[in-house]
Amino acid sequence: MGNNLLKGKRGIIFGALNPDSIAWKVAERAYEEGATMTLTNVAVALRMGETQKLAEKLNTEVISADATNVDDLNNLFIKSMELLGGKIDFVLHSIGMSPNVRKERHYSDLNYSYLDKTLDVSAVSFHKVLQTARKLDAINEWGSVIALSYVAAQRTFFGYNDMADAKSLLESIARSFGYIYGRERRVRINTISQSPTLTTAGSGVKGFDRLLDFSERMSPLGNATGDECADYCITLFSDLTKKVTMQNLFHDGGFSNMGMSLSVLQQYEKGLVHDEKYGQDSEAKDHSFD
Amino acid sequence: MGNNLLKGKRGIIFGALNPDSIAWKVAERAYEEGATMTLTNVAVALRMGETQKLAEKLNTEVISADATNVDDLNNLFIKSMELLGGKIDFVLHSIGMSPNVRKERHYSDLNYSYLDKTLDVSAVSFHKVLQTARKLDAINEWGSVIALSYVAAQRTFFGYNDMADAKSLLESIARSFGYIYGRERRVRINTISQSPTLTTAGSGVKGFDRLLDFSERMSPLGNATGDECADYCITLFSDLTKKVTMQNLFHDGGFSNMGMSLSVLQQYEKGLVHDEKYGQDSEAKDHSFD
Amino acid sequence: MGNNLLKGKRGIIFGALNPDSIAWKVAERAYEEGATMTLTNVAVALRMGETQKLAEKLNTEVISADATNVDDLNNLFIKSMELLGGKIDFVLHSIGMSPNVRKERHYSDLNYSYLDKTLDVSAVSFHKVLQTARKLDAINEWGSVIALSYVAAQRTFFGYNDMADAKSLLESIARSFGYIYGRERRVRINTISQSPTLTTAGSGVKGFDRLLDFSERMSPLGNATGDECADYCITLFSDLTKKVTMQNLFHDGGFSNMGMSLSVLQQYEKGLVHDEKYGQDSEAKDHSFD
Amino acid sequence: MGNNLLKGKRGIIFGALNPDSIAWKVAERAYEEGATMTLTNVAVALRMGETQKLAEKLNTEVISADATNVDDLNNLFIKSMELLGGKIDFVLHSIGMSPNVRKERHYSDLNYSYLDKTLDVSAVSFHKVLQTARKLDAINEWGSVIALSYVAAQRTFFGYNDMADAKSLLESIARSFGYIYGRERRVRINTISQSPTLTTAGSGVKGFDRLLDFSERMSPLGNATGDECADYCITLFSDLTKKVTMQNLFHDGGFSNMGMSLSVLQQYEKGLVHDEKYGQDSEAKDHSFD
Repeated sequence: MGNNLLKGKRGIIFGALNPDSIAWKVAERAYEEGATMTLTNVAVALRMGETQKLAEKLNTEVISADATNVDDLNNLFIKSMELLGGKIDFVLHSIGMSPNVRKERHYSDLNYSYLDKTLDVSAVSFHKVLQTARKLDAINEWGSVIALSYVAAQRTFFGYNDMADAKSLLESIARSFGYIYGRERRVRINTISQSPTLTTAGSGVKGFDRLLDFSERMSPLGNATGDECADYCITLFSDLTKKVTMQNLFHDGGFSNMGMSLSVLQQYEKGLVHDEKYGQDSEAKDHSFD
Repeated sequence: MGNNLLKGKRGIIFGALNPDSIAWKVAERAYEEGATMTLTNVAVALRMGETQKLAEKLNTEVISADATNVDDLNNLFIKSMELLGGKIDFVLHSIGMSPNVRKERHYSDLNYSYLDKTLDVSAVSFHKVLQTARKLDAINEWGSVIALSYVAAQRTFFGYNDMADAKSLLESIARSFGYIYGRERRVRINTISQSPTLTTAGSGVKGFDRLLDFSERMSPLGNATGDECADYCITLFSDLTKKVTMQNLFHDGGFSNMGMSLSVLQQYEKGLVHDEKYGQDSEAKDHSFD
Repeated sequence: MGNNLLKGKRGIIFGALNPDSIAWKVAERAYEEGATMTLTNVAVALRMGETQKLAEKLNTEVISADATNVDDLNNLFIKSMELLGGKIDFVLHSIGMSPNVRKERHYSDLNYSYLDKTLDVSAVSFHKVLQTARKLDAINEWGSVIALSYVAAQRTFFGYNDMADAKSLLESIARSFGYIYGRERRVRINTISQSPTLTTAGSGVKGFDRLLDFSERMSPLGNATGDECADYCITLFSDLTKKVTMQNLFHDGGFSNMGMSLSVLQQYEKGLVHDEKYGQDSEAKDHSFD
Repeated sequence: MGNNLLKGKRGIIFGALNPDSIAWKVAERAYEEGATMTLTNVAVALRMGETQKLAEKLNTEVISADATNVDDLNNLFIKSMELLGGKIDFVLHSIGMSPNVRKERHYSDLNYSYLDKTLDVSAVSFHKVLQTARKLDAINEWGSVIALSYVAAQRTFFGYNDMADAKSLLESIARSFGYIYGRERRVRINTISQSPTLTTAGSGVKGFDRLLDFSERMSPLGNATGDECADYCITLFSDLTKKVTMQNLFHDGGFSNMGMSLSVLQQYEKGLVHDEKYGQDSEAKDHSFD
C-alpha cells in the first residue's frame, strides 16, 4: 500500500528498539515504500529489545554497533553496503540517552561524566556516523540523513534536563556537516523536531504525561504520532525533497509556533478557579516535581 | 537619580497616553537621564489622555500628530528640532491599535478595511516615521529608534488577532529600514518585544488577565513591567549600544525561550485534577472565550 | 510517472502565468500525481500569460479572480467545487507584486499607496483566500494550503524592497490562520521559502542575476529550481505530512542556514584582489545599484 | 568618565589575556563604572598573557583557575567573595578553544578527543561556572552572567569548524540554566553574539581577515569592536536590564539580520568581472582554503 517512494533505495536505521520506537515505524514504512535496509543498535538494546523480530519481518539483518564507537560504525557501513548491494541512500539517527535524567540528577547538580555521556551518545554520535560514512564514501549522491530532535533545543522545558543541550548540539552538527557533505557529494542532512512521543525513551522524562497533554492542547492539529513521523521521514528520504538541507523541521501539529491556544488557556484557567476555591496549596501538592 | 546616560540628547516619544503607558515611563526616565524631548499622539488620544500633564512635568510640549499622516510627521520632526534646538537622537514608537480587536471581529471573520487600519496604524506608521525623518535628515548619526512589539509576532497567541500580523510587519520594517538608515547615517533601529503589560492598550485583548498570569508563571524572572521596559529603553538610546541594530530584543523575563516551566505545569495540572473530580465541562464553562 | 501521491485530491492553483512560473510546475506535477484542479489568476495576467494552454493540458478550466477581491474568491471556490465535484484538498498561493519595485521607488522613498497595494496583493490576499474558504467550508479535513515566500522575510536583502515586509506579513498570516483552521478543521497552512528563482516575477528585482549567483555559491546544494519546488509542494499536499503546519519551510539548498561558504569567500576574495590591483573604484563602478 | 552604572558591584572576569581581549576591555570598563572584580584564567594563559598587569591597574588580583575544573572554580568563587567582600553581581565568560582548529583538523576529519576538549572548554565550562556558583550561592539576586558567542551557532561559516557546535551548546546552556537560576534566585544569564573581533583567539580561524572584511561590508553599521562590546556588557551587567534573560543578543552592527548588502554585492561582482576577464581559475588560486 505504499507509493514506491523509496523504490530501490538502501538505508540504515538506528534505534528501532520495539514497536513503539519511531525508528521501528520508519523502518516498516520505508520497507513498504520499496526500500531495503539494515537495522542497528547497541548490543544491550539488542538484547532487551525486539529488533531481531523486525529484521525478520523486513527480510534483513541486525548489525550491532555502538554509535559512539567509530570502529563499530565503520563495520556497520561496510557490512550494510555488502548486504544491501551498494551505497546507502538514507540514514535515520534516532538515538538519545541521558544518565543524568535516568539517575535523576537535577540540571543544577549534573554529574559531568554523565553529561559527557549524554552529549556523546545523543549528539556527537551523529557526527561520528557522518564522518565515518563520508570517509568510506558510503552514501550516494542526493542521499538523505535525518536525526530526531525536540523543540527543547530552542526553548527550555522543565525536566528535559541536559537532553536539551544535547539536542542543540545535534542540530548544530546537522548544519555544520550538512554544509560539507552537501557541497561535496550532494548529501542532505536534516533534523526532525518531533512532538513528544510515548516511546520507551520518552517515558523517562519527568512529568511526561502532563507534558503530552499540554502539548496536545497547544498544538492546533494535536501531537504528531510516531506513525505520522514515519510518513514524514519517507518524504524526506524520497527524491521529492532534494534541496532541503541543514534544516530543523518541526513535525509537531503546530506546537512550535504557538504561544497560547484557547484549549490550554481554558485548562489553565480551571487551575486558577481551583486555587480560588481550595487555596493555592491543595491537591497538586503531592507531586514530586523539581 | 539617573546616571546621565542621555545627557544632552533630544528625543521624540510617541504614545504616552497616561501614567500606565510604557511610553510615559520611558519619557520620565529619559528626562531623568538628562534628555529633552517632545511628546506626540493623535488628537483624539490627546483629548482623552493626560499627555499634557506629562509635558508640563518634563518642561516640554505636546505636538499633535497622526502617525499615519506624513504631513503631520513632517511637522512633528520640524517643530521638534526647533523646540529642542537640534537634530533628534532617539525616537520611541509605541503605537498599536486594531479595530478588529476593538469590535471583536474574530481572526477568521476580519473586516478588511479594519485590517488595513490595523496595519497602517500599528506598523506602516513606523515606516512613515522613519522615511519622514530620513528625508528631513532629522536624526543624528548614531541615533536610536525603538518600536514596541510582542512575541505574538513569532508565535500565535489566542485572542491577539490581527495585531500579531501587524507586529510581524513592524519588526520587518525595523530590519528593512535599519539596513538603509544604518549604512547611510549610522542610525540604529530595533524593536523591543515586551512582556504583556497592563496598559490601556493591552487591556483590550481577550483573556488578558489570564495571559498575564500564564506569562508570569512561565517567565523565570516574571513579567517585565513598564518601568523595567523604560530602563531597558534607556540603555538602547544610550551610546553604550551603538552597534545593536535590526534586532528584535525580548524583554520578557525569559518567556520567549521557555517551552514549559514547573510553575505553569503545576497550575495546569490542577486543571487536570479538577477535570477528574468534576468532569471536563464544569466551572470554566461560562467564560465566553473564542 | 508519478507516485499517485495526490490521487483523487482536488486543488486550486494561483499564479500559473507561464511555464517558468513555479505555480505552473506545481500544477503539472500535481496532475501527474493524480490530482484534479482549477487554475486562477487575475484577468490581466490571464490575457498576458499562457494559463489557458495549461488548463487544456490538464483537462481543466481557468477561473479569473483577483485575489484581493473577496467576491471573486467566493466565486472561485464555489465554481471550483462544482467543477471538481467536491471540496478542495490543496491550494497554492503564488502571488506577489510590488508597484514600488516596478516603479523603482527606493525603500526610503516608498509611495504609500503602492505599499498598500504590495501588502494587499502579496500578503493580505492570502488571508482573504483562507477566510473565504473557511466561510464556505470549502476545504476538506487535512487539506493543505501553501504560500510561496522568500528568506527576505527574515533577513534584509538589498533591492528586495517592500516585498520583504510583505513576505513577513504573509508568513505571519500563515501562522495565525494555521492555528484557527487547524484546531477547527484540521487544515494545515505553511509557507515555502524558496531559493531565488528565475521567473517573470523574480526578474524584476534589482541585481537579480548577481543575487542568483551569490545564492548558488552560498548554498551547499545550489539553488532550488522551480521543478524541485513543485516536487516539494507535492509532499506537502500529500497525506504524508499531515502534522506539519504553521511552518515556514526553507527549500533553498541550505542557503538559509549558511553564514559563509568557501565558494562565496573565494569569489569575494577575487574582488579584493581586484581592488588591490586596480583600485577600489574601477570596473564595477558603472553598475547603477542603489 | 563612567556613569556609575556598576557602582558597588562585584564581578569575576574570565579570559582577559591581553589588551586585545574583549574580556580585558570589559574589565576596564566595569572598573570605570564603579565595579570591583577579580580576574581569572587558566595557568598557561596567565604565564603567556599580561593579565597580572591588568590586575594591578584595576587594584585587584588574578586567581588562577581552569574553567573545566570544578575544584578550581569552587576556589575561584570562594576567594573572589573574600577578596571583594561579598557575593558576586556579574560574571563574564569569554572562553573558547578548539584543538581541531589549532591542529587544522577538517570538520569532516575531527579528532574526537579534541572535540571533547572543544566542547568542555568552550561550552561545558559555562555550566560548571554556573553550577559551582549556585551551589555556593555565590551570586546576588539580580546578578548578571554573560558568555560570549558567535553567529556560527545559528549559521554555518566556512572554517569555523567545531567551534560552531560548541557555541550552539553554549547558548543552550545559557537558556537551560537561565531558567533554573532565574526562577530560584533572580539571576539572569545571556550570551552576546559578537561580530568577528581581531583578538588572539579569533586570529586562529581560517580566512579570518577575509571574513572580517565580508562581515564589515555586510553589516550596515560595520563590525562591532571589542570596545563597543565592553560598553554593551556594561548595560547588561547594570540594573537597567533586569528582565533580560535566556537570550542570545546579537551585537554585530546588524550582520545577523542581513541577507545581502549593496556593499557586499558590489565587491562580489568585481570577482565575477574578474572571472570574465581572466578566467575562473586565476589569482585566488594560490590561497590554500579548504
